[in-house]
Amino acid sequence: MRIAMVGLGRMGANMVRRIMRAGHECVVFDRSPEAVAALAAEGARGTGSLEELVLALPAPRAVWLMLPAAVTGQAAESLFGLLEAGDVVIDGGNSYYRDDVDRAQAARERGIHYVDAGTSGGVWGLERGYCLMVGGDDEAVKLVEPVLVALAPGIGAAGRTPGRTGGPSPAEQGWLHCGPPGAGHFVKMVHNGIEYAIMAAYAEGLSVIREAGAGRHRREADAETAPLREPQYYQYDGIDLAEVAEVWRRGSVIGSWLLDLTAAALHADPRLDRFAGRVSDSGEGRWTGVAAIEEGVPAPVLTAALYSRFASQGAAAFAGKVQSAQRKGFGGHEEKD
Amino acid sequence: MRIAMVGLGRMGANMVRRIMRAGHECVVFDRSPEAVAALAAEGARGTGSLEELVLALPAPRAVWLMLPAAVTGQAAESLFGLLEAGDVVIDGGNSYYRDDVDRAQAARERGIHYVDAGTSGGVWGLERGYCLMVGGDDEAVKLVEPVLVALAPGIGAAGRTPGRTGGPSPAEQGWLHCGPPGAGHFVKMVHNGIEYAIMAAYAEGLSVIREAGAGRHRREADAETAPLREPQYYQYDGIDLAEVAEVWRRGSVIGSWLLDLTAAALHADPRLDRFAGRVSDSGEGRWTGVAAIEEGVPAPVLTAALYSRFASQGAAAFAGKVQSAQRKGFGGHEEKD
Amino acid sequence: MRIAMVGLGRMGANMVRRIMRAGHECVVFDRSPEAVAALAAEGARGTGSLEELVLALPAPRAVWLMLPAAVTGQAAESLFGLLEAGDVVIDGGNSYYRDDVDRAQAARERGIHYVDAGTSGGVWGLERGYCLMVGGDDEAVKLVEPVLVALAPGIGAAGRTPGRTGGPSPAEQGWLHCGPPGAGHFVKMVHNGIEYAIMAAYAEGLSVIREAGAGRHRREADAETAPLREPQYYQYDGIDLAEVAEVWRRGSVIGSWLLDLTAAALHADPRLDRFAGRVSDSGEGRWTGVAAIEEGVPAPVLTAALYSRFASQGAAAFAGKVQSAQRKGFGGHEEKD
Amino acid sequence: MRIAMVGLGRMGANMVRRIMRAGHECVVFDRSPEAVAALAAEGARGTGSLEELVLALPAPRAVWLMLPAAVTGQAAESLFGLLEAGDVVIDGGNSYYRDDVDRAQAARERGIHYVDAGTSGGVWGLERGYCLMVGGDDEAVKLVEPVLVALAPGIGAAGRTPGRTGGPSPAEQGWLHCGPPGAGHFVKMVHNGIEYAIMAAYAEGLSVIREAGAGRHRREADAETAPLREPQYYQYDGIDLAEVAEVWRRGSVIGSWLLDLTAAALHADPRLDRFAGRVSDSGEGRWTGVAAIEEGVPAPVLTAALYSRFASQGAAAFAGKVQSAQRKGFGGHEEKD
Repeated sequence: MRIAMVGLGRMGANMVRRIMRAGHECVVFDRSPEAVAALAAEGARGTGSLEELVLALPAPRAVWLMLPAAVTGQAAESLFGLLEAGDVVIDGGNSYYRDDVDRAQAARERGIHYVDAGTSGGVWGLERGYCLMVGGDDEAVKLVEPVLVALAPGIGAAGRTPGRTGGPSPAEQGWLHCGPPGAGHFVKMVHNGIEYAIMAAYAEGLSVIREAGAGRHRREADAETAPLREPQYYQYDGIDLAEVAEVWRRGSVIGSWLLDLTAAALHADPRLDRFAGRVSDSGEGRWTGVAAIEEGVPAPVLTAALYSRFASQGAAAFAGKVQSAQRKGFGGHEEKD
Repeated sequence: MRIAMVGLGRMGANMVRRIMRAGHECVVFDRSPEAVAALAAEGARGTGSLEELVLALPAPRAVWLMLPAAVTGQAAESLFGLLEAGDVVIDGGNSYYRDDVDRAQAARERGIHYVDAGTSGGVWGLERGYCLMVGGDDEAVKLVEPVLVALAPGIGAAGRTPGRTGGPSPAEQGWLHCGPPGAGHFVKMVHNGIEYAIMAAYAEGLSVIREAGAGRHRREADAETAPLREPQYYQYDGIDLAEVAEVWRRGSVIGSWLLDLTAAALHADPRLDRFAGRVSDSGEGRWTGVAAIEEGVPAPVLTAALYSRFASQGAAAFAGKVQSAQRKGFGGHEEKD
Repeated sequence: MRIAMVGLGRMGANMVRRIMRAGHECVVFDRSPEAVAALAAEGARGTGSLEELVLALPAPRAVWLMLPAAVTGQAAESLFGLLEAGDVVIDGGNSYYRDDVDRAQAARERGIHYVDAGTSGGVWGLERGYCLMVGGDDEAVKLVEPVLVALAPGIGAAGRTPGRTGGPSPAEQGWLHCGPPGAGHFVKMVHNGIEYAIMAAYAEGLSVIREAGAGRHRREADAETAPLREPQYYQYDGIDLAEVAEVWRRGSVIGSWLLDLTAAALHADPRLDRFAGRVSDSGEGRWTGVAAIEEGVPAPVLTAALYSRFASQGAAAFAGKVQSAQRKGFGGHEEKD
Repeated sequence: MRIAMVGLGRMGANMVRRIMRAGHECVVFDRSPEAVAALAAEGARGTGSLEELVLALPAPRAVWLMLPAAVTGQAAESLFGLLEAGDVVIDGGNSYYRDDVDRAQAARERGIHYVDAGTSGGVWGLERGYCLMVGGDDEAVKLVEPVLVALAPGIGAAGRTPGRTGGPSPAEQGWLHCGPPGAGHFVKMVHNGIEYAIMAAYAEGLSVIREAGAGRHRREADAETAPLREPQYYQYDGIDLAEVAEVWRRGSVIGSWLLDLTAAALHADPRLDRFAGRVSDSGEGRWTGVAAIEEGVPAPVLTAALYSRFASQGAAAFAGKVQSAQRKGFGGHEEKD
């Protein structure tokens, strides 16, 4: 099939490549002419505007948006004005699923289909394929299915789950029609919420191992500070974290792709000195927390990971000041350096 | 009665004063001769060594230790060698209750009583009295009861709890015999665990109010960062935190002494600029967490407060580095400043 | 002044009484004629409809809504149709501050003032006064100030914060104009978020003390279960929790009104057998969590308390099933009873 | 080589099989004669007592203990009496690393080597191999290396980490000498702490998806309960969790072996009705929490997972009662069913 891709950043460009490798045609647009030219050189049909892009598509048209969440709404709005009833807009970016719900409603009023495709795979997707979590009406999802199949990793990407028989379901190929518009990004949102927690789980555990020699380093003993009661149990200085991550990759219960990446990072830079420890968050982790709270579902692990990111960004400083001030108030304690 | 006080720091010195005000005699010792001289000038009997101190007491002797946890064990051990069967050692410092259990056992083998007295009140205790949580055998607690009564705030420190009748219980006077040796510091330990959480509760809440104008400050919008979806609900710049803390002191459900201190701190320094936000912990919060875990009792609120202190001390940095490295690994993301 | 009160439940009725005690006139309405009659018997002017209520007020009219959050919007909407430019609607219920923002906008379009008054004090407010956190424009707040002063606890409700001088600020009297519409309920929302955490802090701490005899109760020792390593440190069966809560009320750092209530509850029913442990939440705690997340402010303590409530309501059951299924999957473990 | 295995439960028996498959000889003992007979039928040399077992080994002897943590100490003690200087005891069970530290000290006094081997792999180990985290002195680890190699999954169990060159390190084969005695179980302990958190991360996330239709189910609207403000965003009833877990297995960032198991469990029993949601914990998660606290390293994610397990076991009930009692105290609220 022929599909259009708007937004040729890291993700979008590689998705175009993967779609073309599967034999489909891609019409592309980006505000950067260089990005368009690069893909045109690889066989895509480059265009200079959304209008031109739309004209290059046969009806029913399918336009995939791969843009920052902050500008997706505007682009979708523009497209709604250019497309016709029966066309499909697919939002593959990191949109908040609520925006999908609203935009799908706006599209529906014009007879346009709106599909949201939560996309995981990062910089590895070109090679590994993209895990796609899709929301939308059946008709629209059916229409773009060839592209979903092309982008997805395929059945071979993982062993078959015991008990599954018959032809492979879409999920077994790496894409899933989760529900009505927004459902794809909802599932992707939670996926990222889980991701934050798994990342933090490894990070915290490795930190505990890193400090396993705490008993060798005398804590200051003053009226405020308690000594470690049994220092003999904290004598493991210098456990090799890169090797620990590596050994966990084989046969352990906690093997995972994130562990693979962690092992690689620690092997390349054992102390991770090139990082300051300031962990960004991109929205989905926040929204997962909000959803958990609004649904009344406890998500203490997911939310703890999120808050740790906030704190790593410096956002806990004022709370610390308040507590230091309280300590000063009741105990006369000065802050330590 | 006559009692000895060893350790004349902030806490010990004021406790001597409060005991003397109640008409008791105090024999005092500190490794600092100046500290001894200062209290001798106020009517205490100063001594130059533990030996001298013990000689100045009538049998059965009562010696109160008010020392940093790190040196209490040594002092107790020395005293056990100087005292006689029937004497009492009281540990009023911030000891780990497990050390009390062990030391009480060592004392018992010599016929010496061991009492642990968890003491809350901080720099305000001289004026307000000290809340005392006491462990030990009945005989020993009976022996030191006059001093406990002198140190405790007394019945007037709080209104009577509805439903209580008859003569006031010791708890109503501000001291409690909680159980066998160690029970006092166990209850005090949990008291401090609770304290950490209450402090953090106010600190977090005030931080949320402080950022209530987040919708006015444009978040960077790039592929990684999601914009605030409804900025119109975060337009409250500059809510006066000192006034907020003040209004909560009257009639609200969250009135407390810690809130009083918070209100005072914010009134004196609305932005708390004199603090960096590095919150120390003195042991009890840690031990409370350990006890919760070993008992199998969930304490997510108490432990979250503890971990926030650790993070404020910089101990989350490596975990942050690991997560930044993972993000770099799967998404090619560079750390932001 | 003369003010109208709509909603004569537990809170509303007592507020009417407190307003009348201060010498003001109250016009009242409730969908329950009995509730209206009861207050009419105490001197209020009862009415049978919102229309009648509005007619009984002099311009500029002030109508205070004290209704469940779920029906406040409808009532406000009805009032907007009955009132005139310059009148004031005050929402004193548990509204989400975002609804205030929206309703204030709707009111503004008709020239009507909208004031939100977060109200703390519960069933004790009649006697203790209500802590009032107020949002709205200056003109409207000025108009209802006499009633705010009447409802608030007054300066005597707490000792003066050190360093404050001059005439008492409104906050020192127990009410505060926090900012524009919604700011009152925003501050009240956070107040409740803090309240949840303080409640949980005491609850968790008391639970840790309650299980301090864990070393006496042999844990089953099988391949899955580890024995308690040092049972000698968990021998404190039967520490009297009511006395512990009582002693903390005097001189300790964690004295508070919530502790007073806890002490009373434990004195009346030491094992709290009349409760099942299912803790309701009324919205504000949720919204505080959402605000923290959307602002990017870590609130691990507040949120942990919220999630514990969710779990107490049974909402963690499915997550438990998933984990039991995982354990079965990798270890063959059957669930224990 | 010839090695002895004591303890032929689920884990021990399969480890014997895997060792024998690699061409080594196994001498076995278990308190159950049937377990011994079963392995003898497969080629192991069965024995009827520890004495007999020791006699069947050539010096230097190597005895691997695969016993519940609660009885490992006793068995090690017995072996220390039967073995000679230069022999090696390997503890492969779920021991607390602190017991290893103490037991290694006791062994060292007799010239016996003590090796601790944290073992992950569960019921799948026979087929997949066991991930082995080992502590002990170099000489002893060298001695048992052939068996470690036999048990470990081998280099083929995972792709090579980018950047690694040369001959495979032990970690790349699935076993690691982490440090002195206890270091193996320390690393294994943290491994399990991470495992708890990853399990909980998936469990919480799936729960959030499961309740994505919350907006369709009317929450009761009374004075206490706030309605869901934007129910239109919670309309996703019935997202197929088994398919979601399945799709995440391919190309997503959160692919892992635990996810594979989760997908299998959900496919077999979509509602997981056979489980009640009571999640056991076996010690390591607790000890990880204790280590984090004693080291001063924040581990909010790991600990939140642990506490959720405690709560699933019913251990939060009293804390819930306290909070319900407090709510009754300040608001007159009765508990809801």
